[in-house]
Amino acid sequence: MSDPNRPFTDEERAGLYRAIFERRDVRSQFLPDPIPRPVLARLLKAAHHAPSVGFMQPWDFILIDSLDVRQQVLASYHEENAKAANNYSGERQETYRSLKLQGIIESPMNLCITCDRSRGGSHVLGRSSIVEMDLFSTCLAVQNLWLAARAEGIGVGWVSIVDQTKLAGILNLPDNVYPLAYLCLGYVSEFLDQPELQAKGWRSRLPLTELMHGNRWGQPMDDETLLNALKS
Amino acid sequence: MSDPNRPFTDEERAGLYRAIFERRDVRSQFLPDPIPRPVLARLLKAAHHAPSVGFMQPWDFILIDSLDVRQQVLASYHEENAKAANNYSGERQETYRSLKLQGIIESPMNLCITCDRSRGGSHVLGRSSIVEMDLFSTCLAVQNLWLAARAEGIGVGWVSIVDQTKLAGILNLPDNVYPLAYLCLGYVSEFLDQPELQAKGWRSRLPLTELMHGNRWGQPMDDETLLNALKS
Repeated sequence: MSDPNRPFTDEERAGLYRAIFERRDVRSQFLPDPIPRPVLARLLKAAHHAPSVGFMQPWDFILIDSLDVRQQVLASYHEENAKAANNYSGERQETYRSLKLQGIIESPMNLCITCDRSRGGSHVLGRSSIVEMDLFSTCLAVQNLWLAARAEGIGVGWVSIVDQTKLAGILNLPDNVYPLAYLCLGYVSEFLDQPELQAKGWRSRLPLTELMHGNRWGQPMDDETLLNALKS
Repeated sequence: MSDPNRPFTDEERAGLYRAIFERRDVRSQFLPDPIPRPVLARLLKAAHHAPSVGFMQPWDFILIDSLDVRQQVLASYHEENAKAANNYSGERQETYRSLKLQGIIESPMNLCITCDRSRGGSHVLGRSSIVEMDLFSTCLAVQNLWLAARAEGIGVGWVSIVDQTKLAGILNLPDNVYPLAYLCLGYVSEFLDQPELQAKGWRSRLPLTELMHGNRWGQPMDDETLLNALKS
């Protein structure tokens, strides 16, 4: 391991920011090419090195290539998505129906990252006040994997339109294990230069300066230097 | 913006992995030096570019330097931590009490990242089946910020031992806003070469190979090439 106290080079730092700013939620651009095992191992190690409350490491990784499993998950997606579409009407519903929101079958691999809520026993350090800290920790593992994938040229799409109880049944999860993230992974034909929902006019990026508060909610963060830097 | 489809250079990719593997949850090594505004802006922009369900961007950022606010949060920490310590007994309790679990006052800045559960209206795309997707999205923003901070030489510590209802009161949050992450930020005297809880014998890193499943929970992931790569 390199000296952890050596400052990052400009290019190392730029690499991290590229992954952050050029990461996308991929649904439509998956290529069928398999992910080489050494690359997949790097993604999983990245996830496993996420922070976790009390070093609980509540995650497990279910690698899914079975077409049968994927078709069952897809069926739950279709059912949930039909209900979701009915929340909209008119032109908005038309736009909703035109959006492709998953790549379960086209991607060469699906990955479910789960959260074992009983790991580490009944008292996990740092989890006594906020019991959901295990779920939050698992999210941090998802983001590590997502960014590592981007740096490897691999797209990730999070399928959130699925019934978690059905998903747990399909994957045969024990009661204490929650299927936190159902992900599609694969190389892509391209990474879009902006989020697809923005490109399609669904929703725009909020101005960051409007999300800032000073010391308490609703108090202005009146640091002009910082506000200007946030605009650039 | 650079061409998003240019492959990452080896050094760019290495920069991301350095941030992932050398990131720490910092409690004891904070220096009082202020964080320059342009650097802080980069961290906040990194957070704001996290993925979010339906492009909801449910996060807000409360920058806290007020000593009064921080002392109130610290008081809640002490109260919660005293209760938490009573979950352990004997030697384990002694170890627990010896651990420093927050740097609220020593760090030059605290940051609360909140989740506005009502943002985007009553129907947020992708959030119809799993209502907690907004909280999960906010976690992804936390991890982006944490990694960006690491690349900038800045330590982050997540204070999870705090009463969220009291914290919401201290920060004057509206009912629909949840204080997801209370973070301490600052330059550090050093980044430890392993997680502090591991160094102090509290808990060790789990073997990644034992967290792998094939297609369904409990089924072996019998890909020897991958298993070997995960061990290295």
